[in-house]
Amino acid sequence: MSDTVLSSLTNHQFRLASRPVGLPTRDNWSATTEAVAEPEDGGVVLQTLALSLDPAMRGWMNEGRSYIPPVAIGEVMRAGGVGRVIASKSPHFAVGDTVIAGFGVQQYLRLGAAEFKRSGLVKIDLRMGSLTQWLNVLGMPGMTGYFGLMDVGQPQAGETLVVSGAAGAVGQTVGQVAKIKGCRVVGIAGGKAKCDWVVNELGFDACIDYKAGPGAVREGLKEHCPKGVDIYFDNVGGEILDTVLARINRKARIIICGAISQYNATTAVAGPKNYLSLLVNRARMEGIVVFDYADRYHLAVLEMAGYLKDGRMKSKEDIVEGIAHFPEALLKLFNGENFGKLVLQVADE
Amino acid sequence: MSDTVLSSLTNHQFRLASRPVGLPTRDNWSATTEAVAEPEDGGVVLQTLALSLDPAMRGWMNEGRSYIPPVAIGEVMRAGGVGRVIASKSPHFAVGDTVIAGFGVQQYLRLGAAEFKRSGLVKIDLRMGSLTQWLNVLGMPGMTGYFGLMDVGQPQAGETLVVSGAAGAVGQTVGQVAKIKGCRVVGIAGGKAKCDWVVNELGFDACIDYKAGPGAVREGLKEHCPKGVDIYFDNVGGEILDTVLARINRKARIIICGAISQYNATTAVAGPKNYLSLLVNRARMEGIVVFDYADRYHLAVLEMAGYLKDGRMKSKEDIVEGIAHFPEALLKLFNGENFGKLVLQVADE
Repeated sequence: MSDTVLSSLTNHQFRLASRPVGLPTRDNWSATTEAVAEPEDGGVVLQTLALSLDPAMRGWMNEGRSYIPPVAIGEVMRAGGVGRVIASKSPHFAVGDTVIAGFGVQQYLRLGAAEFKRSGLVKIDLRMGSLTQWLNVLGMPGMTGYFGLMDVGQPQAGETLVVSGAAGAVGQTVGQVAKIKGCRVVGIAGGKAKCDWVVNELGFDACIDYKAGPGAVREGLKEHCPKGVDIYFDNVGGEILDTVLARINRKARIIICGAISQYNATTAVAGPKNYLSLLVNRARMEGIVVFDYADRYHLAVLEMAGYLKDGRMKSKEDIVEGIAHFPEALLKLFNGENFGKLVLQVADE
Repeated sequence: MSDTVLSSLTNHQFRLASRPVGLPTRDNWSATTEAVAEPEDGGVVLQTLALSLDPAMRGWMNEGRSYIPPVAIGEVMRAGGVGRVIASKSPHFAVGDTVIAGFGVQQYLRLGAAEFKRSGLVKIDLRMGSLTQWLNVLGMPGMTGYFGLMDVGQPQAGETLVVSGAAGAVGQTVGQVAKIKGCRVVGIAGGKAKCDWVVNELGFDACIDYKAGPGAVREGLKEHCPKGVDIYFDNVGGEILDTVLARINRKARIIICGAISQYNATTAVAGPKNYLSLLVNRARMEGIVVFDYADRYHLAVLEMAGYLKDGRMKSKEDIVEGIAHFPEALLKLFNGENFGKLVLQVADE
C-alpha cells in the first residue's frame, strides 16, 4: 500500500446530524464524503478496517455532562477501530502497520503527531489476536470487563458471579476471566442460542434467558445461585439489576458498567428500587470507566492473549460488512440482535 | 438501690401488636405489665433509665429479611438504652452500675448470664459522657456515623462532605468528625432552627434547609459545594439522594446509612434515578450496618469522648419523658419533629 495515491481516495463518513430521542434513526445521521490529504510532517493517514460498535455510543449522542464530551452535531461519529497505516511521515509508524485508534465512523483518518495520544493510536500485534479480537477481548470491551471485574469486583475463588449481557463483548470477557479465577459464573442473556453458547462454548456454569418469561431471572437466580450472589457485573440496569439486588450476599460488589435497557428510554431512568439491599448486606455498587486503566491495558492484553492462545478463552464477533450499514448495525445492540461483539467491517484485511 | 424489693415493682412494656402499614399508630402497640422477678444465678435485673428512639426501629417492625430479624408480634419492642443494675447475682456487675443494653421498650429487664452478650450489656463510664450522650454520639448513632464516615467514606482533608439528617443523631456525629478530619461540611436538615444550630453550634460550613422550597437542595448544593461532593452520607434516600448524585465528583463515596423518607412508604421504594452518575464518576455507593464494627466501638468512644471533653464536639438530645409517651415520641422521627437525638426518658437518673 506504500504507493497508495491518497488523492484518488474518497472518505465516506457518518456524522451526527441531530440528537436522537429514543432509538437513533437514519435521520440522526448524515452521510458525507471528503477528499483524503497527504499526512502532515510527523503525521499519518490510516485506513479503517473494522469499527467497534458499542452501547456507550448511544450515550455519546446525548447532550450533557458525562465521562467524555458528547459528539457535537456535524462531527464524525466517535468510534474505536482497527486499521492500517497507508501513509506515514512519522518515525514511529510505517506503512502497513496495524493499529488501533479512535477512527470515527469513516474510512480514513488523518492524524497529526499531536493527535496520536488523544486518539489512542497504538500499534497492535496480530499474532496476539485477530483483527476483530483486538476490538473484542483485547480491545475496549475486554479491558472494561477485565478491570471492572478485577479491580472493582475483586473476585475470590469459590464466589458466585453473575453477569448480564453475558454473550456481549464485555460479558464474555467477564465470565471467562471469572471462571479462570475460580468463580461460579452465571450469565444472563436474551434467547436460548446465546445462553447455550455461553454455557457450552465459554464454559459458564449456567445462563439465564431473560426472555424466557416473567420471573425467569428471579427463578433462574434462585436455581443457579444457591449460595447467593457475591459479584454482579451489570451491563443492563433496569429490572434485571433490581432482581439481582434482591439476591446479593453480604459484602457483595456490584459493578455498574452500563445500563443498555435505559439508554434509549424517553422517560426518566428507572433507579434500582432495591438499592437498600446495599445497606442490609453492607454491599457496594461502583461505577467503572475503562479509560482510567489505560496505563495497565498492556498487562491485561498480555494476560488475555495468553488465555486465547492456550484455549482457556474464546471470543465471538458479530460482523456486519460495509460502512453504509452503520445506522442499522448500531441498532442491533439495542434490540439484543447482536450475538457476540458487534463489529462493522469497513474494508478487507 | 441495693435493697430494692423487686416484687414490689411493676414493669410497664410496649409490645408490637400488629405490623404497621405506613406510619405506626397506637393500634400497632399493646401496653402490658409484668411482675419483676429476682435475678437467676449469674444474672442481673436492670432498670431502664433512657431509651434510644431510632429510625431503624421502623424497619424492625416489618416482616421479612433484613440485617436482623424483625420484632415478632407480641414481643416487647426492641430498643437500645441506658440503665442501672438494681439486683445482681453476677460477679461482673454490681448494684448501681450504669450500663447500656438492648433493654426493649420496658422499665425493667431481667437478663441471665447467657444473654449478656446478645443484649450488648456493657458497663459505661459517666465521666466520658452523660447518660444521654451514651445514647447519642457515644452510642449506636455515634458509632454508625463514625464508622460509616471513616471506614466507608474515608475522608481526606480538603474534601467536601454532605450529610442529610444533619441535626439528627448520626448526622451531628458525621459532620463534626468530618470537620475535625479537615473536610468542608455541608448539612441538609429540615427548617431554619436546625440549620442554624448545625452551623452556629456544631460548626458546619453550611446547612441546606430542604423545606425551604422546591429546588432548595439543588440550589444549596450549587452554592455551598462549588467544588462538587466527594462524600455523601445519606440518612434519607428519596429525592435528596438523587439531587446529591447529580453533584458528585469522580471517585465519590456515598454511604447508605438509611432512607427515612422511604420507611413509611406504602408504595415501592423510590430507587435513585441518577444512579448512573456512579458510572460516569467512577463513584461508589455502599451500605453500612453498625454491628459489623462492634469490636472497634471502644476505640471510637475513646476518640469521641476526647472531642466532647475538649469541646470540639457537641451533642444535642431531644428528650421525651415517660414510657407512656413511646408511641407518639417515635413518630417525631418520621415527621422530622425531633431536634437532636431522640431519647425517651423512662426513669430519673
